[in-house]
Amino acid sequence: MQVTGTQLLGSQDVSGTGTEFHAFDPATGETLAPAWRSADPRQVDQAARLAEAAFASYRETSLEARAAFLETIAQSILDLGDALIERAMRETGLPRPRLEGERGRTVNQLRLFARVVRDGDWLGVRIDRALPERTPMPRSDIRLRHIPVGPVAVFGASNFPLAFSVAGGDTASALAAGAPVVVKAHTAHPGTSELVGRAIRRAIQQCGLHEGVFSLLAGAGHDLSLALVGHPAIQAVGFTGSRQGGLALMRAAAARPVPIPVYAEMSSTNPVFLLPGALAARAEDIARGFVASLTGSAGQLCTNPGLIVGLDGPDLDRFVRLAAEGVGAAPAATMLTTGIARSYQEGVERLHSHAEVKPLARGAAGTGPAPCQAGLAETTAQAFLAAPAELGAEVFGASALVVRCAVPEDLAAVAHALEGQLTATLHLQAGDDDALASGLIPVLELKAGRILVNGFPTGVEVCDAMVHGGPFPATSDPRTTSVGTLAITRFLRPVCYQDMPDTLLPPALRAGNPWGIVRAER
Amino acid sequence: MQVTGTQLLGSQDVSGTGTEFHAFDPATGETLAPAWRSADPRQVDQAARLAEAAFASYRETSLEARAAFLETIAQSILDLGDALIERAMRETGLPRPRLEGERGRTVNQLRLFARVVRDGDWLGVRIDRALPERTPMPRSDIRLRHIPVGPVAVFGASNFPLAFSVAGGDTASALAAGAPVVVKAHTAHPGTSELVGRAIRRAIQQCGLHEGVFSLLAGAGHDLSLALVGHPAIQAVGFTGSRQGGLALMRAAAARPVPIPVYAEMSSTNPVFLLPGALAARAEDIARGFVASLTGSAGQLCTNPGLIVGLDGPDLDRFVRLAAEGVGAAPAATMLTTGIARSYQEGVERLHSHAEVKPLARGAAGTGPAPCQAGLAETTAQAFLAAPAELGAEVFGASALVVRCAVPEDLAAVAHALEGQLTATLHLQAGDDDALASGLIPVLELKAGRILVNGFPTGVEVCDAMVHGGPFPATSDPRTTSVGTLAITRFLRPVCYQDMPDTLLPPALRAGNPWGIVRAER
Repeated sequence: MQVTGTQLLGSQDVSGTGTEFHAFDPATGETLAPAWRSADPRQVDQAARLAEAAFASYRETSLEARAAFLETIAQSILDLGDALIERAMRETGLPRPRLEGERGRTVNQLRLFARVVRDGDWLGVRIDRALPERTPMPRSDIRLRHIPVGPVAVFGASNFPLAFSVAGGDTASALAAGAPVVVKAHTAHPGTSELVGRAIRRAIQQCGLHEGVFSLLAGAGHDLSLALVGHPAIQAVGFTGSRQGGLALMRAAAARPVPIPVYAEMSSTNPVFLLPGALAARAEDIARGFVASLTGSAGQLCTNPGLIVGLDGPDLDRFVRLAAEGVGAAPAATMLTTGIARSYQEGVERLHSHAEVKPLARGAAGTGPAPCQAGLAETTAQAFLAAPAELGAEVFGASALVVRCAVPEDLAAVAHALEGQLTATLHLQAGDDDALASGLIPVLELKAGRILVNGFPTGVEVCDAMVHGGPFPATSDPRTTSVGTLAITRFLRPVCYQDMPDTLLPPALRAGNPWGIVRAER
Repeated sequence: MQVTGTQLLGSQDVSGTGTEFHAFDPATGETLAPAWRSADPRQVDQAARLAEAAFASYRETSLEARAAFLETIAQSILDLGDALIERAMRETGLPRPRLEGERGRTVNQLRLFARVVRDGDWLGVRIDRALPERTPMPRSDIRLRHIPVGPVAVFGASNFPLAFSVAGGDTASALAAGAPVVVKAHTAHPGTSELVGRAIRRAIQQCGLHEGVFSLLAGAGHDLSLALVGHPAIQAVGFTGSRQGGLALMRAAAARPVPIPVYAEMSSTNPVFLLPGALAARAEDIARGFVASLTGSAGQLCTNPGLIVGLDGPDLDRFVRLAAEGVGAAPAATMLTTGIARSYQEGVERLHSHAEVKPLARGAAGTGPAPCQAGLAETTAQAFLAAPAELGAEVFGASALVVRCAVPEDLAAVAHALEGQLTATLHLQAGDDDALASGLIPVLELKAGRILVNGFPTGVEVCDAMVHGGPFPATSDPRTTSVGTLAITRFLRPVCYQDMPDTLLPPALRAGNPWGIVRAER
């Protein structure tokens, strides 16, 4: 398959008419062919209307047909072969093993949602049978199922060109829910996006689905994004990116004549609390694990551990010394874009020049156009508590700040001062640290979607129990997750049917349970 | 128990310091003692802070303790005896049987949520066990439960002084979820609100819970409402009322530094489609049922059938003639407030004087300060489709508009043109009308939360399968319901725990399942 630089509007390839842009190799600075021209408002409208036209048939596909479609997409992505990995490497600067791993995750995620679709639990069927003899009033027969909210707009993320992009988690969960998807490709990897988009299109054709089930728009600038979110056919939005970007989409969605939900994953510093027993027992191991988690993928992960909170003392000193050595020895890395590299460098400089912050280490400086030089610094709990928004702000990349607590109570005070997070981590020694941990966990539950013990938050398992979400500003909506099978609920709404004849009911609700799904019946 | 005209801030009675207001008997125009003074901003802050302080202990009550609390509230409301009914009659103009029935519903609703709490399904527990041998990467142990979002602000509705008010559906579902509640009483029934508030407070004391689990604020004007929604301790909002009021709360919630969800139920005309077979078979029965549904409670129900859509012809003529006779014979009724009566009268006059609308009937005119004179009018599908927002707008009260369709296709066209609704109803004759119904149902599913056949939408069953919700502007969030047990999900968010030692896990997630709840384990 070729990258042609066109918009994928249903089954049609159409050239944009807006601003020209190219992909860019962040390792070499080379501009990559072909050129794209941004989608224009008419094309946004066309993609959204195609999705609307596809909705009626796609939302009523059988469980088996929809599951097979997701599996066909997975196979179709694999069928792209090495061309996909090579294009993604050039567009993102990410190494081959990382991208091959990410492709595996993307494909497994689609297959996992196929299992979820087949199970049918997502329909959330509830049946209250008629009680004609009840007094004073008989009860009607009432049956509930969930249906998809409507076409969904998905914004690809720069840092996961496969797993959080065109066929990533948002697309997989929306398609699983029965919602057609219009993806806005991230401009940092348009060729990768187009290849994956063509794979989805091929799966649509193989499965005989309506062409409007999927479209892919590419374009530079915010107008395209706002036009997509503002389109009346779009009923929900999935986004992973910057806080500024997420807030802009939230505002646009709330200002529509008919407001729609936005699931934006935005920013998180993923605090790691080092409890005294754990530090005493294994400061070295923790430091090693931390440096690996901090510097992997040049720190460009939403769960990157950017804040380390520990109780002052010789064990924390030991951790800090080893962590600083590790960060100091970190090789130069390539970031996804020159813009991200510039923001990172500015963020680290701002942090390290703060009056209350002591720089501890910088890694090797890079030479390319988008270098990442790892950074570690420290401050005190007192200073942090005086300026939590400033010192607790995410620096996207391999930068972390150690917060030294003078007394154990500072640990909880720092936890209380945090903004919403995707994750919070505790390193603890069973027994020794239980009292401190028991005090912190209730605070952290209100701050984060996932609480980990004795691990690091990077590396998010795609499973049934995963929560990749959390209170604002980690996400726009803490009631959901963007990773794991629970994500399907984001694109569903309940509808109930009262006294409807069996022949008119959807199969999931009919007498005899023809789909053989789990139904809560009373 | 006495009505004292105070704010209930946790366990304390405190007089407001703002604008003075009274309850008012809409049947006689009489001002009722005592006087209230509106809660001031300091009191809003105090109520919200008390709720925040109560959150830590209340959200971790055992299933049994929380269920028993809900049941104690139910009994405590019954213990108010006839004083509650008498006060509510005077404040609302609603008749005794309606209020006694509503009290039963309110009490049953609390008991139903007690059952839901005991079941524990609402915790949505998912467990993915560790797979230490998995390659290339072992899997951690990951366990998910749902926790409440935090303190909830509930706005009492004027039209259900018990079932959608201080101890109504929103309060019951929030308390069931583990969220403390701050209620803003509706100014139309402050005494009824205070009595029920005192009953809840007594249950809190009997159950030994934190006083901040419930507070009741009373006050006139919008500032109090906006201060409550804007308070940083408040994490979600439940509201039933006007579109204007709901939109104001949505805007305020979205503009907060940390935005929060608003569950506002606003307006709905609840279209009823009369299919030709049904009209031919039983126009008389349908007309009789329609008039009863339209005029009950002076039409002051969110599910009141305000729009009738039928295919032109002799059978529709028959229905219209009988419905007009019924509406014309409707006795005068008393509305909840003079403001509602004024809006109703203006709404009917605006509708009946529209160039494309033909007035059909008015009921008896009332004499009190808040009279409701039932109204029926008709228009054509052509006219409706030219101005769906204007002719489809809710007139809160016993007013309905018949839309005559020239051809069968007009039925679907009218359905397409509708705004979001709580309900949509089909009257059909099995067999004869199946083709038309099959075409309408997929349209109506996207417009309404509940679809009924051969009934009327008033009288909402409180059960597991009920959906009392729907697309905007029927509600602010179609992903939920405000009636029925599914409502508990509105106030929950998922949290997961990765590799957490068993002793630190919440009971719901521990090895051996000490709470004995349903858990999805893999």
